[in-house]
Amino acid sequence: MPRYKLTVEYDGSGFVGWQRQADGITVQQVLEEAIEAFAREQRLVEGAGRTDAGVHALGQVAHVDLRNDWEPDRVRDALNFHVKPHPVVVLAAKAVDDDFHARFSATQRGYLYRILNRRPPPAVRAGKVWWIPQPLDAAAMNAAARHLIGRHDFSTFRAANCQADSPVKTLDEIGVRPDGDEILITVRARSFLYRQVRNIAGTLKLVGEANWTPDDVRDALAAHDRGRGGPTAPPDGLYLTDVVYET
Amino acid sequence: MPRYKLTVEYDGSGFVGWQRQADGITVQQVLEEAIEAFAREQRLVEGAGRTDAGVHALGQVAHVDLRNDWEPDRVRDALNFHVKPHPVVVLAAKAVDDDFHARFSATQRGYLYRILNRRPPPAVRAGKVWWIPQPLDAAAMNAAARHLIGRHDFSTFRAANCQADSPVKTLDEIGVRPDGDEILITVRARSFLYRQVRNIAGTLKLVGEANWTPDDVRDALAAHDRGRGGPTAPPDGLYLTDVVYET
Repeated sequence: MPRYKLTVEYDGSGFVGWQRQADGITVQQVLEEAIEAFAREQRLVEGAGRTDAGVHALGQVAHVDLRNDWEPDRVRDALNFHVKPHPVVVLAAKAVDDDFHARFSATQRGYLYRILNRRPPPAVRAGKVWWIPQPLDAAAMNAAARHLIGRHDFSTFRAANCQADSPVKTLDEIGVRPDGDEILITVRARSFLYRQVRNIAGTLKLVGEANWTPDDVRDALAAHDRGRGGPTAPPDGLYLTDVVYET
Repeated sequence: MPRYKLTVEYDGSGFVGWQRQADGITVQQVLEEAIEAFAREQRLVEGAGRTDAGVHALGQVAHVDLRNDWEPDRVRDALNFHVKPHPVVVLAAKAVDDDFHARFSATQRGYLYRILNRRPPPAVRAGKVWWIPQPLDAAAMNAAARHLIGRHDFSTFRAANCQADSPVKTLDEIGVRPDGDEILITVRARSFLYRQVRNIAGTLKLVGEANWTPDDVRDALAAHDRGRGGPTAPPDGLYLTDVVYET
C-alpha cells in the first residue's frame, strides 16, 4: 500500500489544533475528510508536530497510506480541491518508503515565532503575530536565548500536561532578530516539549522589556521548575516552518 | 479647530470599501464611529484614496478636524481603542495645518499588488494575495510594465464607472519582481483612475503567462479602449502602501 509524505501549510486561527478531538475542527480531520472524499477510503493522517489551537504551519509534514498507487501530484491537487474552504493546503505530496514515519522519522523541527513590536495593534497581520506595544531589546533577547542552546533539562519551559518521558531536549539553534516592525524568534531541535517554544518566547519577552536580564534566563533554566519560567506566549505568533528527515 | 493627519492600516477583506455607503460596513465609518466614541463629536474623516471592497491599506492617509486640541498620540491610542474589533488601526496621528487635505494635498500614492505564484492555493495568506497557479514570467511582466511609465491616456485601464475628468495620468514608477513564491507589482503616481492598478495587474498577468507580449501592452495602451485591456485583477492582492505630501 503506497505511503505518501504530505507537506502542509495552514492558518491555525480557526482550528482547535492539529490533532483530532471531539470539541472542534482540526487540521488532521480536514485532511482525513479530504482523503475520504478523494480516495473513498478512511485513513489516518499522521503529523510530525501536534500543533496547538491557533498555531500556524508553513511546512507541517504528515504521512498517509492509500490503497491505490496515485501519481503524487494528483494526490496534492485532489486534496487541495477537497480541503476547501478550509485554510489548509498541501504544498507537496511525495511517494515514500513504508518505513517513513512523519513523526518518528523526523530528525529536526523548525519553528518561527513572530512578535509585532509597535504601539498600534496589528490589522493586516491580526491573528498572525503576538502584539507587544512596548519596545523590546532584540539584542538582549538574543543574548538570553544563547543560554538555551544545547542539551538541557527544559522543565522550566515545559507545560504541566506535557506527555514527554523526559524533560531533556537538545536545542540545535535559537536566534532572535528584528525584521522591520517585527521581532523574529527562530528555533530548531529534534523535538520539543509541549508548549516549549511558546514558553521560551514568553520568557524572552521579559528580557526584551528589561524585566529580566539574560542571566535570569540561564538561572531559570537551571532551576528546572516551570514556576521559574516566564508566561506562555499566545499561539497567534507561532509557525511550524519545516520538518527535516534523513534522506 | 485642530486638524489631524491619520496614517491608517487595514485589512480590507470584511469591508465594502473605504467610503461610507448604505450596503455594508466601511473603513471610513469605523473611523468616524471611533471618533464619535472618543471625542463625542460627529466628524467627517476624509481619506486620500477611496479603496474598493477587499482592498487593503498599509499606509492610507486621512484627515479629521476635532474641537479639542488633543495630544496627537492620545488621538492615535484612543482611536485604536475604539476601532476594536475591526481590523483597522491608526499607525500615526499628527497635528497639521488647516490647509492640509488628505486627498487634495497628496502628491503621490503608492500601491503594491501581490500575486501568489505557486500551484497550491494560499492558506496563511488567504485573502491577501491573488493566486495564480501557472508559472509567470516576471521579467516579461516587468518589460511590459515599462511601456506604461510616464504620461498617457490610460483609458485602456479605466473602469467604466470612473469619475475622473480626464483619462490622462502620469505613472511615476512601476516595477515587477519575484519575491519568494510571490510576484510583486509596485506602482506610484500622483493619482490613479478607478481600478487602474487592478486593470494593469490583470493585463500584466496575460504577459506573465505568455498570452500577450510586452508589445501587446504598448499597443493596448495606445488604443485608449478598455475593451483592449486585460481583465480586472481581484482586490485581495492590492495594498495602498503610502501617500506622499509636500512638506
